[in-house]
Amino acid sequence: MLRIAVAGATGYAGGELLRILAAHPEAEIVRLTSETYAGQNLADVMPAFRDVLDAELTALDLDTVGEGVDLIFTALPHRTAMNAVPKILASGKRIVDFSADYRLKDPEVYEAWYGTRHTDPGNLDGAVYGLPELHRDEIREARLVANPGCYPTGAILALAPLLQGGLIEPGSIVVDAKSGVSGAGRRAELEYSFCEVNESVRAYSIARHRHTPEIEQELSQAAGSAVTLNFTPHLIPMSRGILSTCYARTKDGVSAPDLRASFEKAYGDEPFVRLLPEGEVPSTGQVWGSNFVDLGFVPDERTGRVIVVAALDNLTKGAAGAAVQNMNLMAGFPETTALTPSGIPV
Amino acid sequence: MLRIAVAGATGYAGGELLRILAAHPEAEIVRLTSETYAGQNLADVMPAFRDVLDAELTALDLDTVGEGVDLIFTALPHRTAMNAVPKILASGKRIVDFSADYRLKDPEVYEAWYGTRHTDPGNLDGAVYGLPELHRDEIREARLVANPGCYPTGAILALAPLLQGGLIEPGSIVVDAKSGVSGAGRRAELEYSFCEVNESVRAYSIARHRHTPEIEQELSQAAGSAVTLNFTPHLIPMSRGILSTCYARTKDGVSAPDLRASFEKAYGDEPFVRLLPEGEVPSTGQVWGSNFVDLGFVPDERTGRVIVVAALDNLTKGAAGAAVQNMNLMAGFPETTALTPSGIPV
Amino acid sequence: MLRIAVAGATGYAGGELLRILAAHPEAEIVRLTSETYAGQNLADVMPAFRDVLDAELTALDLDTVGEGVDLIFTALPHRTAMNAVPKILASGKRIVDFSADYRLKDPEVYEAWYGTRHTDPGNLDGAVYGLPELHRDEIREARLVANPGCYPTGAILALAPLLQGGLIEPGSIVVDAKSGVSGAGRRAELEYSFCEVNESVRAYSIARHRHTPEIEQELSQAAGSAVTLNFTPHLIPMSRGILSTCYARTKDGVSAPDLRASFEKAYGDEPFVRLLPEGEVPSTGQVWGSNFVDLGFVPDERTGRVIVVAALDNLTKGAAGAAVQNMNLMAGFPETTALTPSGIPV
Amino acid sequence: MLRIAVAGATGYAGGELLRILAAHPEAEIVRLTSETYAGQNLADVMPAFRDVLDAELTALDLDTVGEGVDLIFTALPHRTAMNAVPKILASGKRIVDFSADYRLKDPEVYEAWYGTRHTDPGNLDGAVYGLPELHRDEIREARLVANPGCYPTGAILALAPLLQGGLIEPGSIVVDAKSGVSGAGRRAELEYSFCEVNESVRAYSIARHRHTPEIEQELSQAAGSAVTLNFTPHLIPMSRGILSTCYARTKDGVSAPDLRASFEKAYGDEPFVRLLPEGEVPSTGQVWGSNFVDLGFVPDERTGRVIVVAALDNLTKGAAGAAVQNMNLMAGFPETTALTPSGIPV
Repeated sequence: MLRIAVAGATGYAGGELLRILAAHPEAEIVRLTSETYAGQNLADVMPAFRDVLDAELTALDLDTVGEGVDLIFTALPHRTAMNAVPKILASGKRIVDFSADYRLKDPEVYEAWYGTRHTDPGNLDGAVYGLPELHRDEIREARLVANPGCYPTGAILALAPLLQGGLIEPGSIVVDAKSGVSGAGRRAELEYSFCEVNESVRAYSIARHRHTPEIEQELSQAAGSAVTLNFTPHLIPMSRGILSTCYARTKDGVSAPDLRASFEKAYGDEPFVRLLPEGEVPSTGQVWGSNFVDLGFVPDERTGRVIVVAALDNLTKGAAGAAVQNMNLMAGFPETTALTPSGIPV
Repeated sequence: MLRIAVAGATGYAGGELLRILAAHPEAEIVRLTSETYAGQNLADVMPAFRDVLDAELTALDLDTVGEGVDLIFTALPHRTAMNAVPKILASGKRIVDFSADYRLKDPEVYEAWYGTRHTDPGNLDGAVYGLPELHRDEIREARLVANPGCYPTGAILALAPLLQGGLIEPGSIVVDAKSGVSGAGRRAELEYSFCEVNESVRAYSIARHRHTPEIEQELSQAAGSAVTLNFTPHLIPMSRGILSTCYARTKDGVSAPDLRASFEKAYGDEPFVRLLPEGEVPSTGQVWGSNFVDLGFVPDERTGRVIVVAALDNLTKGAAGAAVQNMNLMAGFPETTALTPSGIPV
Repeated sequence: MLRIAVAGATGYAGGELLRILAAHPEAEIVRLTSETYAGQNLADVMPAFRDVLDAELTALDLDTVGEGVDLIFTALPHRTAMNAVPKILASGKRIVDFSADYRLKDPEVYEAWYGTRHTDPGNLDGAVYGLPELHRDEIREARLVANPGCYPTGAILALAPLLQGGLIEPGSIVVDAKSGVSGAGRRAELEYSFCEVNESVRAYSIARHRHTPEIEQELSQAAGSAVTLNFTPHLIPMSRGILSTCYARTKDGVSAPDLRASFEKAYGDEPFVRLLPEGEVPSTGQVWGSNFVDLGFVPDERTGRVIVVAALDNLTKGAAGAAVQNMNLMAGFPETTALTPSGIPV
Repeated sequence: MLRIAVAGATGYAGGELLRILAAHPEAEIVRLTSETYAGQNLADVMPAFRDVLDAELTALDLDTVGEGVDLIFTALPHRTAMNAVPKILASGKRIVDFSADYRLKDPEVYEAWYGTRHTDPGNLDGAVYGLPELHRDEIREARLVANPGCYPTGAILALAPLLQGGLIEPGSIVVDAKSGVSGAGRRAELEYSFCEVNESVRAYSIARHRHTPEIEQELSQAAGSAVTLNFTPHLIPMSRGILSTCYARTKDGVSAPDLRASFEKAYGDEPFVRLLPEGEVPSTGQVWGSNFVDLGFVPDERTGRVIVVAALDNLTKGAAGAAVQNMNLMAGFPETTALTPSGIPV
């Protein structure tokens, strides 16, 4: 049994992580921390877990959080994470970190987008970007996995094969993403209150959302050259799900079968990427509660662009499911353990 | 392995059944029928199942549906079921029937509420009402289990212990229930279209909803005398969940601890009924996607009534989860097999 | 032109009030106060009003709020209101107060339900409960109108005629109400955040909701004897609307035509109460954004009860629409001025 | 009084039209037709109109629909409209047509996108595209106004000024739009049922949506050269609203003030276009139920693109509000008559 601690267990990604781990036959939850709810029982905070997961929430203590534990999921706010991670790593524990603090390889890029100096640049090189579809082998050996952002997962998986294959113009990319509200976290803020979100849609952080450099980093690596793109996130009135609609110009002579072949080559053996039949694009409903990313694409000869659509559940493949997938790889378990259930059909 | 057929697999209850069965270690799905989608692959109709459950949908043929099968779930419309069930039973197969056709013991009551003569009254006596909390031992031996209606499950579990204990006035009961839209089935009807349902709540079938006699039958048995009550269902803008708010006059001298004791006695060992701490009542969100019924109650000394609130997911404990729970009992599997996952925390 | 001030303009009821007043031909908005947003322009806080209502928000100053003003709407929190109202009244201004502070005639009852001593009992007698259907003549002359709570409006209008006519048992009443989230106000609280409300329904404040004594006060007056009842509010995932499902035992010999006659007598000339045809009950969708209360009822001979259903928009007839209706009466305008638009058909 | 007939009154756009006309001081509704509900009263079909608009629905008879009428709104399906319009025009009545049949000037383009031959090409030249912001003077004189599609209105208004000013590359445009469900019409189809739409987002008709040539026609005219673009509509779980996120490359040397100046020049005097302050982009919530289009834009120097966001209510400015605005112009009424109310603040 792999002994687990979760630091920051009572956010939405934390709750999803507990839901998955509660059904994991090789994982044992040893410790759950929560700043807001320390001292309470998990079921008092998240009543879905009553009689399912009986655990007391404790305050995070960096000196003891790793005691009797093999792996720690750190679901802490950005900036908090890079203060906690070095200490935990130093104690010899492996980490899957949900924050953005170890995703960007270049501390200058981090500073430019996050507006603060990176305080632990020394661990950036060793950190592995936790997208198994791109970095599976490194994840197996990693001490520190930087779990991807919810938006980047869809955008990167939608576009990486086309850039790897040289099928699209790197400078032509636009990613327009639509997200459910749980992506904003579990927060008492007016702008995420029911009446402010319901019956409305809006874009936010246009041209400055912090997931942009993360997408660009991974797609640049796929392309073999620097990729700069527009990424626009939108908030829509639903709890879970991200749909990323990605636009790019195809290079001259690239055909629909070329496009399909590149996706099949990239994902033919992937357990959690489903390429839809020709002409179909996914809804987020069909991946609700599952660890799948569903992909579909439409070439538009009239305009010379290809439109790739990726759907995922931001809390599962976009956060906690990916984290368990990474944990499975790190621990040598079958990669799909505890992640096979289908989504909710309705 | 128990070999399973599902007749009527592509409704919402059918989809939920497949979600649960897909994760059941002792069940093997052999046959799926669908009148609407015969000839198509399941994933074309319910894309959540792509790469999870690969199965072709066939038209229902009563002569062959049981071939190579141990147990059949019949998720057919009312009236259709009572034409199919006798034939299947005669072939020696066991059945869990989702329809209302075998829930009422008295064919006169059936005719009064359903407006049609019962065509298979001979099988009513042998049919067992599939609420394990009340009829567990009979279910184990049953050839035909009548899976309860989604509304009755909550109302019956909320009130049966109080009637069994003689703590409330049988003539004083009002059940006011609020349901998500999936309870209406997967139907192309204007009244269930998004814009008609969204931002609105309404009551329907007041004083004549067909789940009324089902609730009365089981509560009369619990009370040991005839119970007549008001049941009012409401449609609210969400997909899943039923909240039943139940009102009854407590008998003279009945105290809050008496009420609690009756629930604890009835459900102390039940795997899927959770009695909330004093003063708490459940939301449907906390049982979303799980097989739990959560119960809470508030005694009101000022008015002499007790208010009991029951929450469940209409597609899980209110339909497919209960059906698998019944199947587990019939097959001698641990009752909770494939039903332990927590609900969705968000 | 009637010169208007609104104290507490930036809550949801305040916004709805401004929407109605902006189209009122006889009202001129002179002053808007907001504690949270003082110094900002209204359109910065509620962008729907850009180019529609250009106004700066100021902090509430009790000494000056009435300057150049004929009537003040006070949309202040409970307890705050009873500190502000006496001062404003003393300056000779008329008030429509949205709070609960002047609705209950008996300060003891106020203290029992609100947990605090009433600090302005002297003005309770002169305050008029602002339900025109019951107190129209007094409202015309009132200096201080206590605008009814959103829940009481539906429950009182549903039941008062039946009690006035002696058609139902006063001790048998149960009111089960379902409300959209705007009723909770514009608040940054986790429990009203989108993901906590969406896909869930829950009851709250069972047996202790503060609108209970308000309903009982008005229904007792209608009955001519003390009425004690159960009132249970529920929160459902929509922004606007309240549906009140009311249960009562009919007295012996009372017929369906008797019930209908009592409603027709009470509301035949009412501009904002619509009695639906026999057998129909309303949805909240059909009154969304309008000042109507729609009523329908179903007698159940089997149980001896009548079920009355009332639908209204909690922000319009349940708050701001009623307030303008009261203002129209106080100022001698036609009662329906600015209140005639239909609801939103979808 | 302008005497009005509405042919096809019981769809969602028809209902919104009636809501607006019911408050119009210069319009008198003389005749409402409905194929589905002929013979019923409007209030039986749309109960929001009870006691507001008392009218019987009749079947459409082309020979008599214009009797005693000055102007006819035809809200008929595509293809049906072009059979009805010539007859009505021939009788001398003016028309505002909600269908797509008279929006495209080139019948070949119509045939290419709608898959059917245009049967009334003779009236295309005389028809005026009903976007007052671009064609106000022609609308005043028109016998036949082709009311714009809901998607084109937002996209055209977002981009036309930038093309008119030569500020963006015509070949670089991508329009990604998100719509509420009422845009699909009032239809009993499974794909628009509540449970299929709720908690999900999807793209549809990628690269082949029929509003594409309409956007291109008007933007080509604005640019003075042929514009070809990608338009991708999405369905999101809400009833009303369209948000169009538009991407284009700015030409070399174009500054943020240049962009703003072009919008101010185009819309400075427009009553229903609101340009938001620098850095702000609109939500659809802020125009819910109003006739406004709200625009905001963000230049992204990093990528050389400008992102323009347009929000509108698809049933108001996207359909019925625009139709009344056109009617006001045709009849010589003040353009804003009956269209001034603010949106719903919540």
